[in-house]
Amino acid sequence: MAHLTEAVRETLGWYDGERPGVKANLARILMHGRPGGSGRLVILPVDQGFEHGPARSFAVNPPAYDPRYHFELAIDAGLSAFAAPLGLLTAGADRYAGEIPLILKANNANSLGTVKDEAVTATVRDALELGCAAIGYTIYPGSDRQYDMFEEVRAGAAEAKARGLAVVVWAYPRGGQLDARAETALDVVAYGAHLAALLGAHIIKVKPPTAYVAEPEAKTAYPAGAYDKLQDRVAHVVQSAFNGRRIVLFSGGPARSDDDVIEEVRQIHAGGGGGSIVGRNAFQRPRDDALRLLERIIDIHLGKAG
Amino acid sequence: MAHLTEAVRETLGWYDGERPGVKANLARILMHGRPGGSGRLVILPVDQGFEHGPARSFAVNPPAYDPRYHFELAIDAGLSAFAAPLGLLTAGADRYAGEIPLILKANNANSLGTVKDEAVTATVRDALELGCAAIGYTIYPGSDRQYDMFEEVRAGAAEAKARGLAVVVWAYPRGGQLDARAETALDVVAYGAHLAALLGAHIIKVKPPTAYVAEPEAKTAYPAGAYDKLQDRVAHVVQSAFNGRRIVLFSGGPARSDDDVIEEVRQIHAGGGGGSIVGRNAFQRPRDDALRLLERIIDIHLGKAG
Amino acid sequence: MAHLTEAVRETLGWYDGERPGVKANLARILMHGRPGGSGRLVILPVDQGFEHGPARSFAVNPPAYDPRYHFELAIDAGLSAFAAPLGLLTAGADRYAGEIPLILKANNANSLGTVKDEAVTATVRDALELGCAAIGYTIYPGSDRQYDMFEEVRAGAAEAKARGLAVVVWAYPRGGQLDARAETALDVVAYGAHLAALLGAHIIKVKPPTAYVAEPEAKTAYPAGAYDKLQDRVAHVVQSAFNGRRIVLFSGGPARSDDDVIEEVRQIHAGGGGGSIVGRNAFQRPRDDALRLLERIIDIHLGKAG
Amino acid sequence: MAHLTEAVRETLGWYDGERPGVKANLARILMHGRPGGSGRLVILPVDQGFEHGPARSFAVNPPAYDPRYHFELAIDAGLSAFAAPLGLLTAGADRYAGEIPLILKANNANSLGTVKDEAVTATVRDALELGCAAIGYTIYPGSDRQYDMFEEVRAGAAEAKARGLAVVVWAYPRGGQLDARAETALDVVAYGAHLAALLGAHIIKVKPPTAYVAEPEAKTAYPAGAYDKLQDRVAHVVQSAFNGRRIVLFSGGPARSDDDVIEEVRQIHAGGGGGSIVGRNAFQRPRDDALRLLERIIDIHLGKAG
Amino acid sequence: MAHLTEAVRETLGWYDGERPGVKANLARILMHGRPGGSGRLVILPVDQGFEHGPARSFAVNPPAYDPRYHFELAIDAGLSAFAAPLGLLTAGADRYAGEIPLILKANNANSLGTVKDEAVTATVRDALELGCAAIGYTIYPGSDRQYDMFEEVRAGAAEAKARGLAVVVWAYPRGGQLDARAETALDVVAYGAHLAALLGAHIIKVKPPTAYVAEPEAKTAYPAGAYDKLQDRVAHVVQSAFNGRRIVLFSGGPARSDDDVIEEVRQIHAGGGGGSIVGRNAFQRPRDDALRLLERIIDIHLGKAG
Repeated sequence: MAHLTEAVRETLGWYDGERPGVKANLARILMHGRPGGSGRLVILPVDQGFEHGPARSFAVNPPAYDPRYHFELAIDAGLSAFAAPLGLLTAGADRYAGEIPLILKANNANSLGTVKDEAVTATVRDALELGCAAIGYTIYPGSDRQYDMFEEVRAGAAEAKARGLAVVVWAYPRGGQLDARAETALDVVAYGAHLAALLGAHIIKVKPPTAYVAEPEAKTAYPAGAYDKLQDRVAHVVQSAFNGRRIVLFSGGPARSDDDVIEEVRQIHAGGGGGSIVGRNAFQRPRDDALRLLERIIDIHLGKAG
Repeated sequence: MAHLTEAVRETLGWYDGERPGVKANLARILMHGRPGGSGRLVILPVDQGFEHGPARSFAVNPPAYDPRYHFELAIDAGLSAFAAPLGLLTAGADRYAGEIPLILKANNANSLGTVKDEAVTATVRDALELGCAAIGYTIYPGSDRQYDMFEEVRAGAAEAKARGLAVVVWAYPRGGQLDARAETALDVVAYGAHLAALLGAHIIKVKPPTAYVAEPEAKTAYPAGAYDKLQDRVAHVVQSAFNGRRIVLFSGGPARSDDDVIEEVRQIHAGGGGGSIVGRNAFQRPRDDALRLLERIIDIHLGKAG
Repeated sequence: MAHLTEAVRETLGWYDGERPGVKANLARILMHGRPGGSGRLVILPVDQGFEHGPARSFAVNPPAYDPRYHFELAIDAGLSAFAAPLGLLTAGADRYAGEIPLILKANNANSLGTVKDEAVTATVRDALELGCAAIGYTIYPGSDRQYDMFEEVRAGAAEAKARGLAVVVWAYPRGGQLDARAETALDVVAYGAHLAALLGAHIIKVKPPTAYVAEPEAKTAYPAGAYDKLQDRVAHVVQSAFNGRRIVLFSGGPARSDDDVIEEVRQIHAGGGGGSIVGRNAFQRPRDDALRLLERIIDIHLGKAG
Repeated sequence: MAHLTEAVRETLGWYDGERPGVKANLARILMHGRPGGSGRLVILPVDQGFEHGPARSFAVNPPAYDPRYHFELAIDAGLSAFAAPLGLLTAGADRYAGEIPLILKANNANSLGTVKDEAVTATVRDALELGCAAIGYTIYPGSDRQYDMFEEVRAGAAEAKARGLAVVVWAYPRGGQLDARAETALDVVAYGAHLAALLGAHIIKVKPPTAYVAEPEAKTAYPAGAYDKLQDRVAHVVQSAFNGRRIVLFSGGPARSDDDVIEEVRQIHAGGGGGSIVGRNAFQRPRDDALRLLERIIDIHLGKAG
Repeated sequence: MAHLTEAVRETLGWYDGERPGVKANLARILMHGRPGGSGRLVILPVDQGFEHGPARSFAVNPPAYDPRYHFELAIDAGLSAFAAPLGLLTAGADRYAGEIPLILKANNANSLGTVKDEAVTATVRDALELGCAAIGYTIYPGSDRQYDMFEEVRAGAAEAKARGLAVVVWAYPRGGQLDARAETALDVVAYGAHLAALLGAHIIKVKPPTAYVAEPEAKTAYPAGAYDKLQDRVAHVVQSAFNGRRIVLFSGGPARSDDDVIEEVRQIHAGGGGGSIVGRNAFQRPRDDALRLLERIIDIHLGKAG
């Protein structure tokens, strides 16, 4: 670990008042890998197996059935961190100890049930034993269970911070008054990011928003034409997270062509996004293709030609 | 206990990062009985009485009403371990102390209610007092109570591991979007095994899957014809459990003819299954028949002509 | 683990009323290694480094500085169990998981201080995490701190038994009214063994007693000439441990010639001693010599010509 | 953090069976600063103020009265870690978060009292909140309070390890049978290092031993002439710490000339010492002199001409 | 258990305000055995092995080395209860469960040390697990450690009562200002009984007092000649225990002739003593002699010709 860069110092400055351990763990993530020092993050999350099942997640690239595959992919691509549920992290945390910051994804849902909720599947204590730098939770703003989820996040986040762990929140509005289109509406995604910040998240993950505005009452806040470009929508979401004083990461969504992914990342970078969290577009490609794509993504976040 | 065999050493290697006590208890089970040292397990579970009531479970073979019958059956058959609920284990743990590794089945359901859930009926402390090598939990992925069940398993498994006990998870998808046919669908069984691994199970028990694929989104992951043979389906379920780095046991289901059971075990063995967990097909036969069948099952898992 | 032998069943019968887990762990020790099944035990204890320092313990046989040396010596000699303090057990418990029953020596003293006491250096929880079958404590009956030590043992033993662990007590009278000669006096050693049994020990370790009787009030209980042979003194100590219903092990003391050790072991066996606990006479010899001596010791306890 | 080097991987291999979080924190320290990756450590400890008072510690170099001075000295010198008591760490942990691994010195003594003991002045929770990679304790083997100190270390170390922190033990024999000369005797220093390892330390700090042997019973283990060179004494102390399978650091002692310090470090390096822990010889020099000396010390541990 | 007798009802009336569970356990003891229903108790205590060592206790009657001997003696003699330390009770509590009320002697001393204290060797929890009706403690009024002992008894008794156990206190003044003669002085024994009552004992055990009065200040309270007969001294001690509203038992002391024992018991009965607690005079006789003597003792307490 070299001296902190100015970019990282500035980012840590946003977290004024957090415990030193939290800042040290944010610094670990911010200084690690190829994006290290830039203030931007590129993270590999592998909770697809929990969410969609193993075959839908890994059949297209069978080596990915092995937990060690993902650790090595994240390490070899020079990513900032690796995020996964308890069992998957446990299956590699010892072998790869010290090689990459880990984020324990502590609640999870699957696609077999009908209830829009998540199970708390891991604890702060688990995160400490595994040597994680952060713990992560998903919230479903809008769902009938949203307040229970907020309370679980609150409890977990409070304990995590008291033990020096950073807190990542995946903000995925759904349920309640939200139809499928609304889940990625600009106002709704921004609202989700803001809720995550208000719940105490240090790092927030959202989906790239569309230009649609779902809440009638919100429409006046979004002048026609002002958010036609993704870059502007990204900037608005970042603004919604304490005026850019929280790290907001944008997810890549389902597997697509390299060019589609890259174009989206360019806009995220241009809009001041804190970085990318790339799951299926990484582990559902053959390893070499994935490494190549991740290299391009990192380059963009480093301000190099992608 | 002789020196560990290479097969057992390799299996323990999958559990990299687990506490030494967990590995020692896995080794106790893996080195015990006739399958001892092979890396494969054959286990007798007797929770049918809880699940289906005594008469449906034992009337066909009345000596099985006595808890000691099952201990002796498991011991005399040279099985790897014996699994049962608290009361049943307590009724023999003293008399048969040291004769066979025990697995405390710590949650249970019955057939009288309508809610798809289980009651937590025993604790890690009970398991330690009874001298168990492992504790076991059932999950019903898909059911409306699935997330509560996951959280119960999480809590029990964390305490068990901290006390050096191995964790067995019975993964039985049901409820939610799953109709009866879907419960044993290939994608669903594989999904259940994967969830058990992600929740931290060391040993996973599933039902042999059919060739049916239930989730529409999963169908592309299963090319037509590729999974017509049970052996290939078994291999896929094993792959879904961390690419074969977790022990996956296949249950025998309702009582059937010896030949049907044996044919199924052959396919399980051929597909790389970690072994068999045989309840009704053992204790619902007359003792001598059961011993003979179990001997054949073990022989197959040992690679001998069955 | 084969069926328990009659000898082991009989031994377990002495522990009537103990929890099944305790019996299962006693059975693990009693069935393990070359003495397995005989009802006799031969154990390697390595706490000399704590008691006397590393050079006095290991300089004569430098490979013994490495914790793994002792695990391998105990395993390769086919001993019943290996006992050591926390740090030493931790340094091998993972690598040798499942290969030999472990006993965590949970209190320790060193030779640098002047206070006759021990520090509690490990807990029942540590023992469970390391996969131990038993936990062990030293008591110094007679010392000014004896009652504190008894209370520490009581607390540790109660917790250990509630968690299914067997309890080993090293009974070493010293201090108080006891001069150096009295520490190994027949009445005093027998008294120490009795106290250990009353405190709840399952396995008791004592030093071979001399024919000296230290307590004036005890002299009438020891007719002149009746205890001239070590064999008879051993029998009396065993009798003092609940009339032979506790396993009493005799330690080998400082390193001596093979013949001296063997002659002593013969008398211990002839007197009905439960076995030998051989530290310095094992690890302070070159490995091959140690293996040869341990083989002879085991042979004697198995009733073979030594 | 780059990929771990082979030297660091080998060092982590010594800690087989420890939790992943402990290994990750050891890796953080081992990969940090100029010694990063070499397997050797150079650490700045500043507990002199607690031990000897501020004037005796800092008057010679007044900027050192400011806690931030020490953080910056350690960071600018490229050291592996910085160790200090609670108040001093708290005074800089936020400002320098993420810049250098921290070790919370959790017990302390002062020079005002007469009892050879230490107060526990900080907890594992403090260490986590401050973002420390390790927690440290001093023991005084031999003192009348030694067993109480061992028990405090045991409790703290157990909790630290369960939370993924590494454990450093300062082993300083004193009191009891030990006069001043004995405190740095070869046998006594080696004994202290061994006790620290048995108590579960991952990193052990000792003073460079003299050629004097204090315990009469230990003299035969030290052939005359065999330990005349410091390098050989260092090698013996390292051997006493599980045959070199624990990191042993040697302290610099009172402030001396650069040449004296450098010559001692050369011998420590030649003897296989794990590194240096340099307090007074660093912060009691003017900053530029200190940086120059620390650079030379690191160079020696990196195998470069000093 | 038949209806309580009037005598037992009256005795229970003394314990007005105690929890029902305590009364139920007192009733169990008072209704048991041949003295059952009389309001008088005859109890076998076997803590001699702890106090004086095994040979001094049992060599004269070797079958008594076996814990089961004492259970059977107490049961076959039709005694009210059996009292012993943890290890000895544990060795028979299972085999003889339900055959005789048990009293766990929860603190103990031995004759090897020089400190006048006792170790707390068992807990209320132990007593409950073993199915005891009462827990017992010794106090040494006068000794330097008396207040610590009182506090231990207080804590144990409070917990015992909260769990429904009766509390027995052995009151043995010694140490401090008391020389050997004073230990059985009338005023001192009465003082001890009173202290036990004040500390909350339900049943108090004392030694038969001599006519000597030890405290100068107490002499005026004991008119010359008024206490020449043991019967009157017994009456005074009983009076000192809340005017006879506590059960006071008198111990038999060292082994003596049957006639001496019987004569003493006659006086105890005549003086209104609550019964006898007979250890060495029971188990240090051959079994048949012991049974005969105990029969005579019970007869006296039942008011039959002895």
